[in-house]
Amino acid sequence: MSAAQYLSEGREFIDAAICRYLPEETSYPESIHKSMLYSVLAGGKRLRPVLVIAAAEAVGGDRQHVLPFSVATEFVHTYTLIHDDLPALDNDDLRRGKPTNHKVFGEAIAILTGDALLTQAFYLMTHTGLMDSVPEKCLLRAAHDMTSALGTSGMIGGQVVDIESEGKPIDAETLEYIHAHKTGQLIQACIRGGAILSQATSAQLSALSTYGAHIGLAFQIIDDILDLTADESQLGKDVGSDLDKEKATYPALYGLEDSKKKAEQLVEEGIACLEIFDERADPLREIGRFFVQRTF
Amino acid sequence: MSAAQYLSEGREFIDAAICRYLPEETSYPESIHKSMLYSVLAGGKRLRPVLVIAAAEAVGGDRQHVLPFSVATEFVHTYTLIHDDLPALDNDDLRRGKPTNHKVFGEAIAILTGDALLTQAFYLMTHTGLMDSVPEKCLLRAAHDMTSALGTSGMIGGQVVDIESEGKPIDAETLEYIHAHKTGQLIQACIRGGAILSQATSAQLSALSTYGAHIGLAFQIIDDILDLTADESQLGKDVGSDLDKEKATYPALYGLEDSKKKAEQLVEEGIACLEIFDERADPLREIGRFFVQRTF
Repeated sequence: MSAAQYLSEGREFIDAAICRYLPEETSYPESIHKSMLYSVLAGGKRLRPVLVIAAAEAVGGDRQHVLPFSVATEFVHTYTLIHDDLPALDNDDLRRGKPTNHKVFGEAIAILTGDALLTQAFYLMTHTGLMDSVPEKCLLRAAHDMTSALGTSGMIGGQVVDIESEGKPIDAETLEYIHAHKTGQLIQACIRGGAILSQATSAQLSALSTYGAHIGLAFQIIDDILDLTADESQLGKDVGSDLDKEKATYPALYGLEDSKKKAEQLVEEGIACLEIFDERADPLREIGRFFVQRTF
Repeated sequence: MSAAQYLSEGREFIDAAICRYLPEETSYPESIHKSMLYSVLAGGKRLRPVLVIAAAEAVGGDRQHVLPFSVATEFVHTYTLIHDDLPALDNDDLRRGKPTNHKVFGEAIAILTGDALLTQAFYLMTHTGLMDSVPEKCLLRAAHDMTSALGTSGMIGGQVVDIESEGKPIDAETLEYIHAHKTGQLIQACIRGGAILSQATSAQLSALSTYGAHIGLAFQIIDDILDLTADESQLGKDVGSDLDKEKATYPALYGLEDSKKKAEQLVEEGIACLEIFDERADPLREIGRFFVQRTF
């Protein structure tokens, strides 16, 4: 199966289930539930939940068993987008081709919607009733591992340095820190989470972690490139906004061609880490390659 | 021991430990860690962590065993204060006698600091290494229970209705919803958390839950009263701000005297639920009474 096919089927699998894991749109207070649904259903590619599933399957796990955790990672991703888009942060008007959450629901509800989606993600990750085929110690470990990736030594650390680097000259080390943390840590934690829940061995988990770090960084480099080269209609968000905001990007530091090469090299190195796995890791291999070929 | 003494000793116990559970102030990126410390060390009463401890001790548990969870509840509380104080929400300049977080660090860092404290709280709640004397199933249950209390059917639900009720006539049912959810749910979850981690029986947990719901609501009613009657220097935050913002409050609906009576009645009903406990629940009984007598 090609990566495009696996991703498309994975997306359908997630989209068929995702609303089950949110409060009903009509439950009180309605505004926050409408707002959560609006952003969750705004058309993401569901890459992170599909990576959870692909990692679970690579170590012989069952996608049904990791589904709630997998959906939780999409809620985490959506929370970060909503808060990032706020006027005080990136001040973006368009996301996934639609007005950003605060443009529709106002800033107060947007802040609370981000908070609510992060909380709902932890609610799902610790839900033994929904994941009763997973040993409790694996649930705890995967949830804890995810919180490490999301905190100030992980994703939030990357966001802080990103904001504080705007409009300033930046060295290669800081740029890699931002990208590896802002984007890479969540991608890596999704892969680790799927593996931990499926009782991966230490050797498997270690290999998948390195794979995850490599493709996570590559993903953000390609994001930088697409921000410069893609159509707004194709990308579904403001294009050229990194330049406008004087954001630190790989193309700005290395140029377009060398950035692309760096991303390709990272993916190849990441895939090389998967040699201890059989064909059940093929989707991870294909997704890695897809990451650098994508146009949206 | 009087409630004041128990609370003061409990506060010292928490304050002696709290910094161990935060990243170092000097670790990279410094700004977010300084900001987290600033708000966490801005002088809270540590009521929520002390309630975790008091509930643990009421069922024969050990305060050392629940300490990381207990500190986590203070981080949760601090996150809600930072986000509540933002210009898009309550727009408050003063908190615990000091400038609010966004006044010192700016809105972007304030939003991320709230996010980081919530994440750090979940990191602690799922940290088996720090709570290895607590069975894993109790850790999972307490963490999951907390996430229910913090979501849109709990605290965030209360905040949403609070914001949406500003400047509007409000009925008694909506007012109780706001207070029970915005403030009461976290207080109740702290008490439940301490009990769950200490392997409370179902009957004990049920009694403590009802106690927690009662004193949680009483606590917020007294907060409304103090907003009208206390000195700003005594309260450490803007006084009269509920009136300025046309917030829904108990005194506005019932008058000062009837509000005080309602709070006292709630506390007495709450304490009555504790009859199955021996003297180890005395601190909880005393804290309940203290809640309605406090002047700050």
